Amino acid sequence: MNPDPFFQLDRVIHEKGRLSIMSLLAATPDLSFTELRNLLRMTDGNLTRHLRTLQEAGYVALTKTFHNRRPLTTCALTSAGRKAFQNYIDLLEQIVRQNRDS
Amino acid sequence: MNPDPFFQLDRVIHEKGRLSIMSLLAATPDLSFTELRNLLRMTDGNLTRHLRTLQEAGYVALTKTFHNRRPLTTCALTSAGRKAFQNYIDLLEQIVRQNRDS
Repeated sequence: MNPDPFFQLDRVIHEKGRLSIMSLLAATPDLSFTELRNLLRMTDGNLTRHLRTLQEAGYVALTKTFHNRRPLTTCALTSAGRKAFQNYIDLLEQIVRQNRDS
Repeated sequence: MNPDPFFQLDRVIHEKGRLSIMSLLAATPDLSFTELRNLLRMTDGNLTRHLRTLQEAGYVALTKTFHNRRPLTTCALTSAGRKAFQNYIDLLEQIVRQNRDS
């Protein structure tokens, strides 16, 4: 077995909660904070914490606007985030393939 | 996107270091502590810590013997470990497939 793909896994994306957020955002142009929270059944605090980590890594952009006078936070992958996620999924695929062959 | 596979990922196996250990052990009947450490370029302390977690989960069995009068620790997956790892790889495959489709 080649251990290299494991070393290359991006720690920011590998965490389960963030992996699910990245995966949802990769499938859509953007999602509101509330949509993400409901889809992932996360607490506000948990989602906020993960989004901050993803934002600091440059993978997710948050946009704050108002909708019917209520604040609306929209979350979307940046192009760096999309690329990093693609790379991560490629590594997962290598890991799955290695383990199917062995 | 179906978020269920993410929630089901086994936290014990998902951690990068432990994932690489499980993956190596899944490919062989057993490996010595020294072989694992050299293949994974881990420190003794790190490998010991991860093996303890895997042992407590019932996924890895450690056998201590002597070889040329020197202590030898052999590591192998238990059948529960093999099953849990198989299940984990199946989930990764679902995640990869979902993200290829989207």
